This record gives sequence, structure tokens and C-alpha cells, in this order.
Amino acid sequence: MKALVLEKKRVLNLREIDLPTDIGDDDVKIKIHTVGICGSDIHYYEHGKIGQWHVKTPIVLGHEGSGTIIEVGKNEKKLKVGDKVCVEPQIVNKKSKEYKLGMYNYDQEVKFWATPPIHGCITPEVIFPGDMVFKLPENISYAEGAMVEPLAVGMQGVTKAKIKPGQIGLVMGCGPIGLVTALAALAGGCAQVYIADILSDKLKICHHYSGLIPVDLTKEDLSSKIMKDTNGWGIDRFFECSGATKAYEAIFSCCSPGAHVVIIGMNAIPVPMDWSILCAKGLEFQTVHRYSHQYEPSIKLLEMGKINVKPMITHTFDFKDSVEAFERAAEHRPTDVKLQILVNDEK
Amino acid sequence: MKALVLEKKRVLNLREIDLPTDIGDDDVKIKIHTVGICGSDIHYYEHGKIGQWHVKTPIVLGHEGSGTIIEVGKNEKKLKVGDKVCVEPQIVNKKSKEYKLGMYNYDQEVKFWATPPIHGCITPEVIFPGDMVFKLPENISYAEGAMVEPLAVGMQGVTKAKIKPGQIGLVMGCGPIGLVTALAALAGGCAQVYIADILSDKLKICHHYSGLIPVDLTKEDLSSKIMKDTNGWGIDRFFECSGATKAYEAIFSCCSPGAHVVIIGMNAIPVPMDWSILCAKGLEFQTVHRYSHQYEPSIKLLEMGKINVKPMITHTFDFKDSVEAFERAAEHRPTDVKLQILVNDEK
Amino acid sequence: MKALVLEKKRVLNLREIDLPTDIGDDDVKIKIHTVGICGSDIHYYEHGKIGQWHVKTPIVLGHEGSGTIIEVGKNEKKLKVGDKVCVEPQIVNKKSKEYKLGMYNYDQEVKFWATPPIHGCITPEVIFPGDMVFKLPENISYAEGAMVEPLAVGMQGVTKAKIKPGQIGLVMGCGPIGLVTALAALAGGCAQVYIADILSDKLKICHHYSGLIPVDLTKEDLSSKIMKDTNGWGIDRFFECSGATKAYEAIFSCCSPGAHVVIIGMNAIPVPMDWSILCAKGLEFQTVHRYSHQYEPSIKLLEMGKINVKPMITHTFDFKDSVEAFERAAEHRPTDVKLQILVNDEK
Amino acid sequence: MKALVLEKKRVLNLREIDLPTDIGDDDVKIKIHTVGICGSDIHYYEHGKIGQWHVKTPIVLGHEGSGTIIEVGKNEKKLKVGDKVCVEPQIVNKKSKEYKLGMYNYDQEVKFWATPPIHGCITPEVIFPGDMVFKLPENISYAEGAMVEPLAVGMQGVTKAKIKPGQIGLVMGCGPIGLVTALAALAGGCAQVYIADILSDKLKICHHYSGLIPVDLTKEDLSSKIMKDTNGWGIDRFFECSGATKAYEAIFSCCSPGAHVVIIGMNAIPVPMDWSILCAKGLEFQTVHRYSHQYEPSIKLLEMGKINVKPMITHTFDFKDSVEAFERAAEHRPTDVKLQILVNDEK
Repeated sequence: MKALVLEKKRVLNLREIDLPTDIGDDDVKIKIHTVGICGSDIHYYEHGKIGQWHVKTPIVLGHEGSGTIIEVGKNEKKLKVGDKVCVEPQIVNKKSKEYKLGMYNYDQEVKFWATPPIHGCITPEVIFPGDMVFKLPENISYAEGAMVEPLAVGMQGVTKAKIKPGQIGLVMGCGPIGLVTALAALAGGCAQVYIADILSDKLKICHHYSGLIPVDLTKEDLSSKIMKDTNGWGIDRFFECSGATKAYEAIFSCCSPGAHVVIIGMNAIPVPMDWSILCAKGLEFQTVHRYSHQYEPSIKLLEMGKINVKPMITHTFDFKDSVEAFERAAEHRPTDVKLQILVNDEK
Repeated sequence: MKALVLEKKRVLNLREIDLPTDIGDDDVKIKIHTVGICGSDIHYYEHGKIGQWHVKTPIVLGHEGSGTIIEVGKNEKKLKVGDKVCVEPQIVNKKSKEYKLGMYNYDQEVKFWATPPIHGCITPEVIFPGDMVFKLPENISYAEGAMVEPLAVGMQGVTKAKIKPGQIGLVMGCGPIGLVTALAALAGGCAQVYIADILSDKLKICHHYSGLIPVDLTKEDLSSKIMKDTNGWGIDRFFECSGATKAYEAIFSCCSPGAHVVIIGMNAIPVPMDWSILCAKGLEFQTVHRYSHQYEPSIKLLEMGKINVKPMITHTFDFKDSVEAFERAAEHRPTDVKLQILVNDEK
Repeated sequence: MKALVLEKKRVLNLREIDLPTDIGDDDVKIKIHTVGICGSDIHYYEHGKIGQWHVKTPIVLGHEGSGTIIEVGKNEKKLKVGDKVCVEPQIVNKKSKEYKLGMYNYDQEVKFWATPPIHGCITPEVIFPGDMVFKLPENISYAEGAMVEPLAVGMQGVTKAKIKPGQIGLVMGCGPIGLVTALAALAGGCAQVYIADILSDKLKICHHYSGLIPVDLTKEDLSSKIMKDTNGWGIDRFFECSGATKAYEAIFSCCSPGAHVVIIGMNAIPVPMDWSILCAKGLEFQTVHRYSHQYEPSIKLLEMGKINVKPMITHTFDFKDSVEAFERAAEHRPTDVKLQILVNDEK
Repeated sequence: MKALVLEKKRVLNLREIDLPTDIGDDDVKIKIHTVGICGSDIHYYEHGKIGQWHVKTPIVLGHEGSGTIIEVGKNEKKLKVGDKVCVEPQIVNKKSKEYKLGMYNYDQEVKFWATPPIHGCITPEVIFPGDMVFKLPENISYAEGAMVEPLAVGMQGVTKAKIKPGQIGLVMGCGPIGLVTALAALAGGCAQVYIADILSDKLKICHHYSGLIPVDLTKEDLSSKIMKDTNGWGIDRFFECSGATKAYEAIFSCCSPGAHVVIIGMNAIPVPMDWSILCAKGLEFQTVHRYSHQYEPSIKLLEMGKINVKPMITHTFDFKDSVEAFERAAEHRPTDVKLQILVNDEK
């Protein structure tokens, strides 16, 4: 089947590659419609690796996919041919202790799309276990459906934040993950959410969203602003989505006593943490690794209009232009939020 | 000072009564603007008692008040003359164990407005401890400010519900408390909230609110509807706000495994609970008594437009017509949601 | 194979019955050593049913079993022939939403030993999925191993109680479940645990346990005693293990503000709950249905000597005397705590 | 009054100093019996400062005190002359938001004994607010009573760890705080607790405690040992009590997925944290600053014998030898656990 294949660092081809075609009893076959490009896809393209994962053999990229069911295995009872769906791109071991405990995202044997050597979904057809495929409601488009995957990351962070209604949040980093986290925080109970970045162009998208307060770090002093707005108390929930060491400095200066800090961004290098002062505020830290159980609530919030991801989809490329799409993504334009590839326009 | 005085059951007078006029060092003096009529005010009027509290001597009614600061005690640093405020109507003992533990709403020595023998606020001026008086933002009216008190009850219930973003709620009873609970649940993370009542006129207000799904119990089978909508799983958070024994039957039939049930409504008589079947779903029950720490987040959600209480204020009476207001309230018209009394129109 | 078969209400036979003999790839075969008699076994014997479950066809009784592995399926890697084990007697559906969420005890399709029509384990050999079979450490006997099942119920209750170290507990009912709950509460952080019963003979066992304070309800006023001991504050964690409606009355009178109540006992009839007064203390209620994830921690606590169940095993019958064992159990002697059947004395 | 006064870094005198002698209405006067020497006392002695706190004027050292009530203010109703007590050495502002929220240990205006410029308690008499003074039961000695303060730190950490009964803990650092944390973890639900140190002499005390497993880091590989003992799963609760950067490396290698990490030790310098790998296990981090609400449960656990601090009190000095006591403490002998000063032997 034709697919967007990362041969090795910086070498991408849209070419034929052997992929599985037989579906198992618990699987479904999906005609892929739309696939979003994730920061990790771009990182593999640019660097050939992320952390411990190296691209050693060619892999198909893409893990933010939506499409239409075209075949169902005999054990699958929930989905049927013709269903518009999105995919939670992790195949987990149901016999693992992690799965039994309800935290399957920590399964050490997980097979995650587009994480070497597992192939992703920028290809016309994929086969996947039915229990990780979710039907989309009528009022959600394929493009929005392909946004459920990144949204699920923000939802995982916000779920772990245990927000009390009316609290105030702060998100560091206004990239796609920062944005979905901020939107999930607003939908999840925050009365308002500050979102801070050093690139003012990135912050422009905030005008689409009520309750989302952009802070240009090159122009405003973050902690002064927050302490002024909160009468010296500080924010209740802090979401680190930038991966920048500098962002961690805001934790102590912006948080209220007993605040929760959620680490979502991937820092490239270890971050110096001054625990002795962090202790003085009794902060709680939560760490996020992908997600579990987030597709159903994420889809529901999209369906009810409580989260709107449409302004984030800033450009869509045709499947034939997939390589070009990645070249554009690798430019890291601050005005590009989410780039998507339209693999197949039919339903 | 003139005030609306409940002399005894069914006898109300708008008359002069002796009330404190000297403010203490930690107090503020407030010119009352608007006061909402609560179900408990009406209940004292109609029955002369609620539970253990009996009207033995004349008391001023009303505890949902907003107004303007006209004097501040010398220790009060946060508020100043001219501030538009609302009042959290409980004076608690700072030396109690309950206060120390952060759950001051269980303080056994609490003095709560319009709970015999404590006078309430349907009177032109009141004196109150400054730490229980909260400044309203510019975009919130006095009428809305007088809604913070009932909203705080719903907020307390929703906070105790520990909603995960995107969950589905069900509120039993579409009176003022059911409504503010439903609105708080939507603001607090629910993707959608069902609200059920046996009076279809009460449910009409729901068209003002996106995400709020009215269920007319005389026309629809609640659990069938919910199980159909949730693919047989059930709802995640159940809020009992009706005080009706019948409403409790919906708990088992509508809840998902592990769901949380929040008891807010005051049942007049003990409710038979079949714990042996409730256990089979591992339900958690939370009970709500007034509120603690809810004024700031409630005001913030109003300010940011995440909760809109304006459609709930269905009629406003002049101070001079206070007795008439209570007579109307005692009619219990299903189309009356919240009646308010305008004590003083000046700021 | 020979087994203790309940033919119908009050008719028990130790006789040959057809049971599965082939083990699946994920299964193990166990030579049963010891089986405890549970209240539910006796209830089926005496009444032929529990709630919705009726004995319609003959079933083998017993679900508190320990034994030795004598064969392992090819997929089972954790256990090996000769291992001393106990069994968590529920076969759950790994594809269910409940299992995925980590709360497999609410799986509606669960097959639970000795719950009609599923056969139990009072028989020399059983086959069971390996993932629900747990190796016992050397210092734990088979008799103790057969106590892990009831202990797991208490552990589930105590886990849901979220005890803070040094809190004070109260257990209603000094039967086997009350006792294991009290021991789990002491191991799980309570500084002391009151245990109340109306039969003073049942309370005699308490002298074996430090920190366990018996309260004879025929001689002492429970709430007076507790309020005196706690300077009027009340207990922090309340465990209902009696199934008696009367026991529920102690909730309000004995609990502190914000206390947690855990419902473990099975009440035969609905219990009238006066929610309006229970709300005044803001109590949290948790409900317990069997257990999940409790075998490993229960075994660890036995191994480390933090829980000692040996005094609870008051009489052991030979397999050939199984019918007699049930007749004795049906006498409900207050000095009998746990009766066990020694199915096979060899290891 | 005579007191042990730190004049400045390295200069200690037992001399007369002016201290308050009038008790307020809410205060009690205590004849000090025993005071323990804390690591912070020694640190002020050796370095003249800790973090932001500098010894600029002479201060009385000591904050781990027990004694006898010799006078009570007129508002104090709980305590009476002759009571054996210990002191929670923080005077907090009851009007602060932190106090209202129940987390008074984060009060920014707190006055904490022996934290410059607040005088401590190595002196024959002190005056203190009665609500922070706790009566000791008969079976607890003054020496043990003076151990409640450090124990409360461990209790705070263990409370924040939210241990489930039967879990396995790991404490880094076998100093006094590591030990009380380990003992609190065992009392608070852990089935067993590993405690690791690089000084084998420090670990010798562990033989007094069942369930406490010493790990000599110079002889054993910690993560290998733990992964072997837990079948590759890891420990559930991690307590950092060493202040050593190196100790943080054990977090990832020893923790199970979803484990909680509690930071109690004070690191002198920022610690590099590799969040991107820590996220992969979804760890939760809690930070500890002193304690709140821990004296009552700590005393109860001592009273019931669930925690035994007696083996930790390794040497007691007379008041007249206080300076010598500090010189000895500054030797940091690994076999010295807690040194105490007997200020006054009479009750």
C-alpha cells in the first residue's frame, strides 16, 4: 500500500510499502480520511529519534488519524461498516498488570503508531483493534476527529490536575499541546486560563477563545501579572507544555499554596528543581504520558461544543503532498498550529 | 431599622426592629441592594420551622444579599467604602476545630442569617465580618450578586463530585438549587447534564442553557433514556436536588459503575436505601451542607460568563412589597425560579 | 470428581459430580488444600438464594480456597507446579469496560465461585485462570491462605476509606467480615478501631488484637463512649459490617464532621437514611462489592505479620465431614468465627 | 530567664536572656521538661543560616519541646495546670487564607520556634497559644513527647502519600526524619518499608523495627534489590528524606507505574530532574513543608504503640550541658540518632 515512509532522518518518501491487510477477529479495517502532523512526527523526521526510540528501519509516520470503517472482525460488536471514527493509536496488552489496574498507558509492551518500529497511519487503509477505535458523532468532522489524539493528551493532563470549579490555570507554551491543554482546562472547570509563550504570533489564536488569556513573555512579567490579578495568591493549576527549562522557573513564582503542577511537555534535558523552596508551598506534581480513557470524554466535549478545535487546524495538505506538508511543518512557523493531511476525501 | 420580620408562622411584617448599628474592628457595614428569596425563607414563613430550628422570636428573613460597603472596621484591609459586594451569610468561630481543618461549614456554633434566632438581611443596612464579604466585579450586577449564595450551594456539591472533564451528569429536581447545581456541573467539567423534574413548566428554563437536557418525568422513562444515550453504561455524576424520596430510585438505575452521588436536596423524611444493590456498582455518596470556600470561584465563573444566572431571576419586588413577594413565593408557581427583593436601588 | 454439592435449599451431599478437567492455555490446575466456609455459602444452604441469585441446579459450594499448583497452562509464566497458592474466585471479562477501567469487580459478566450457577471449590481439584491465582509466601499456611478471600473484602473497604494515619475507626458487627475489616483498618493506618456487636461472645476474640476495642452494645452506649473518648469530636472512619438496620443509627451519632462511612455488610431490607441530618456533617459514603487488586497487598500484610488471621480460624473439619461442617455453621454459634474444611492434607 | 542562646554562627551560650513572661488570654505557660535537637538547630549553629533565614540577632534554639502546664490563660478551656504536654511550635495567623483553607503550615506570617528571629524553647519556661499545645497520654514520657515534632514531619509526608494498605515504601536517608517517616509509613499502611543510606552505622537501628528493611547503598544495588523483591514492578511510595541529589536517581529506577514520590528532605542545591522519563511512569510528586493537623494522630499512634520512637533517643544531656550537646550533635556521629536536652527533670 502507498504510505508516507520515513526512511531515515530527513528522508521521506510517499511510496509503496508492505503493510498488514488481514484483519483479526477483534480488529476493524479503516479507510483513513485525515491525519494530523504531530510534533513527534516532525521530530523523527528532523532528528531520526526521540529519546530511546530510534528510526532504524523505514516506518510510516502519523498517529492522529480519523476515517471510515470498511470492515469489521467477527468479534467486534460496537462498530459497523460506514462508521466515522478516530483511532486511539496504542495497542496494549490486556494481560499486563498496568491494563488490569486501569492505567494501560504505562504498559511497557505498548505498540504506539509511528513510534519505531511501529508503522503509523499516513496511508489509505489501516487495521486496528476495535476497542481502541471510537465512533464520532455526526456533528464532528473528520478533521476534528483527527484532533482527538492531541486533545486526549491535554485531557489526561487536566484530569490529573483535579481542577475544582472556578479555579485559575496557567499553561506554559502556546503550541498545539499547550492549546488543547488550555481548552481542556477551561472545559474541565477553570474559570480562566493564562497561556504564556515567547512568540507573540503563537498567541494570536487566543482571540478565538473566551477565558483564555495570552501572556507574551517578551513583553510582560508573568508572575507580576498573575500575582496582581489574583491579589497575591497565585494560580491554582499549572500546566507545563513548553518543554523549556525556563518555564519551570514560573512554578514557584506563580503558584498558590497547595497548587498542582502538571508536567506534559517533554524537556530535552534535565531541569534543575529547587525542591527546598517548592516544598514551602506544598505543591503537588503530576506527570503525563500519553493518555488513558480520554477518547470518549474528549469526543463528548467536542460534540457538545464545549471544546472547539477548528481554529487550530490552520492548513490541510493532500495526501500526494505529504512530503511537502512535513517540509512545511519543519519550518515551525509560529502561525501554523496544526497541519493535517487529507489522505482520502471520500467518506 | 425597618426590616421584613417573620413574627411567627404565616405572620410577616415590614416594620421597625432593633438591629445592631455599631461595627466591630473586623466588620463592614453594607447598604443592602438586592436580596433573593430562598426556599428556606419560604419554609419558615409557611411552617415556622425547619428541622430543629423553630421561629420562637421574631426574626428578619433573607440570606441571599448583595449591596454596597458604606463603612469599614479598622482591621479590614481588603474592602473599602463604595465596593459592590455580596455576603457569605455565615459567621463562624475561627477557634473551632472545623475552621482549623478548613471545613468551617460544619462549625456547630455557626451563626447563619435567617436561621432562628439569627436575623437575616431584608433590611436597608447590615453589619458583617469583612472576611465573609466578597467584592463583585464590574460586569456583575447586584441582582446576580444576590445569586452567589444559592450558586455556592451548587458549587459545593459539584466540588465534592470530583468531576472528570467530559463526564455526564444527572440532576434530580429543576428548582433553583437543581439549576445552579446543573450550571455548576457544566462549568465544572461535565460535557452534558440531564435535569429531571415532574413539572414540565419548571423545565422550560433549560432552553437558555446549552448542554442542559431536560427530562420530563411524566413523559419519559429516565433510566431508559439515559441508558440508551450512554450505550448502557449510565451517568457518571448524580446530583439529588429534589428532596423527593422517589428521586433516589433513579440512583441505581441511572448510575454507571463507580459513579458518584451527591446529596444536596433536603428530604423531609428518611429515605429507604437498598445498600445491598447500591454496593454492586460501588457508588460513592457525598453529602452537602451549605458551602465553604465557594464564593470566590463562584464569582469568578460569573465574571467570566461561564455561568449565567440571569435567566433564573424571574421577578423582582420592591422592598415595600416584601410581604407580597413572600405571598407570591408561597404560591410555588413552577414558572417562578428566583424571586428577588430590591431593598434599595441606589448604589 | 467428588465435591460438596448443594442440591437445593437445605440439601447438601458430598458426591461425585462432573467438573471440567482440561486446563486452558492461561489456566492452572490446583489441588485444593483448605476451604473456608463463608456466610454466603451458609445462606445458600439455608435459603437457597441470595438476592437475585437462586440455586436452580446443583452447585459445588465454597470460594475461600487455597491449594497447590499441580499443572500449568502453556501461557502461564508466573506460577509453577508445586506452588502454594490461594485463589481470587472471580473470572472476569478482560474486554469489558469495567476491566479496562481497573474496576473489574463490577464486571456484569463475572463468574464468581459458588454463586449460582458457577461451581465453587470444595472439591479436590479445580482449574482456574492463572492471573487470579496468587502464590503464598513460605511463612503463610494453607489455612491462612484460605483466609485471604474474606480479608480481601475488608481490605477493599479499608482502601476505599482512604484512612489518614492515626485516625480512629469504628466497625459495626464482629463477625468474620467485621473482624477482617477491623484488622485491615488497623494495618491500614488507624491508631485504634472500635468494634461493636450485640453478642458479647463474639467480642471475646478481640483480646487477641492490640488496638481493637470491643463494645458490647447490650452494656454500653456506643455514641456516649465514643464521644467521651474523642472529646466530643467522633470517629473518622465508620465501617458497617453487620447488615443490621439498627447499626446505621450510629452513623450520625458517632461520626466526626467529614468522616467517611464504608458500607460492606449486606442489609436484607432497605435502610431508612435521614440524609438531611447526615448532610449536616458532610459525610462521605463508600460502597463495597467484593474486591479488586486486593490479593497481593493482603498476602503481603499477612507475610509481614501486620495482620494475623490465625485466631479467627476456630474449627477445621475433614473433607469427609463437609456436610457436618455446614450443619455446624448453620448453628451460627457466636464463638465460631471461621470454620474451614481440610479437603486434602498433602501439599 | 536562662536559655541556650545562639549569638551568631558557632557561638552558643547558656545565659540569661529577656523572654516574655506575661501570658495572653489564649495562652498557656509551660515548664519545659525535654527538648530534642533538630538538624535545623545544628545547621543554624554551624552555618548561621538556613536558606533565606539568617541569625542576625541572638536567638534561643530548640523547637522539639515537651513539658508541664503551669498556668493557663482565661480563654483556654482544654488544658489545665499539671498537664503533660508537647508543643506544635508554630504560631499561625487565624485570619490568613491559608488557615481558613486548613493548610496553616503555608501561612507566610507563621512564627516558628528557633527560626530567626523567633526564640525557641531550650529554656525553663515558655508561653504559647493553647490551641497549639497537646496533652500527652499517661503512657507517653516527656522524652517521647519531645519526639512528636519530628514525627509530625514524617506523618505529614505519609499523609500526603495516600498509602493504600499493603503497599511497599522506600525511604531515602536513615537520619531522624527518614526514620520517623519510615515508622509513620509502616503505621500508615505500608506492609514493608525499605530504608536506604550510605552509612551502614545509621542503618543499625533498623533491627528494632519489624517491617523496616535496611539497604546499605555501599554494598547493595538498590533498584536491583527492589525490582527483584517486587517481581519487576517496583515500590509504590517513595520518600526522599536525605537531601542528597544522588537519592533522586532512585526515583525512576525503583518506582512502579503510578507511584507517589514525597519530597521531605531539604536539598541544598537544585536537583536535575529528567521529567521526560519520569512522565513515562506517570509518577505523582508531593512536597512537604513542616506539618498541619499531625499532632493528635501522631500522639495517638504513640499511645497505642503503633509507633515506637524510644530506640531513636540515643543520648540525653542535662540543661547545663546544652552547649556540649550541640558540639556533640555537630560531630554528626552516625550512631547518634536523636540527642535530647533535659531542661528540667521535675514534672
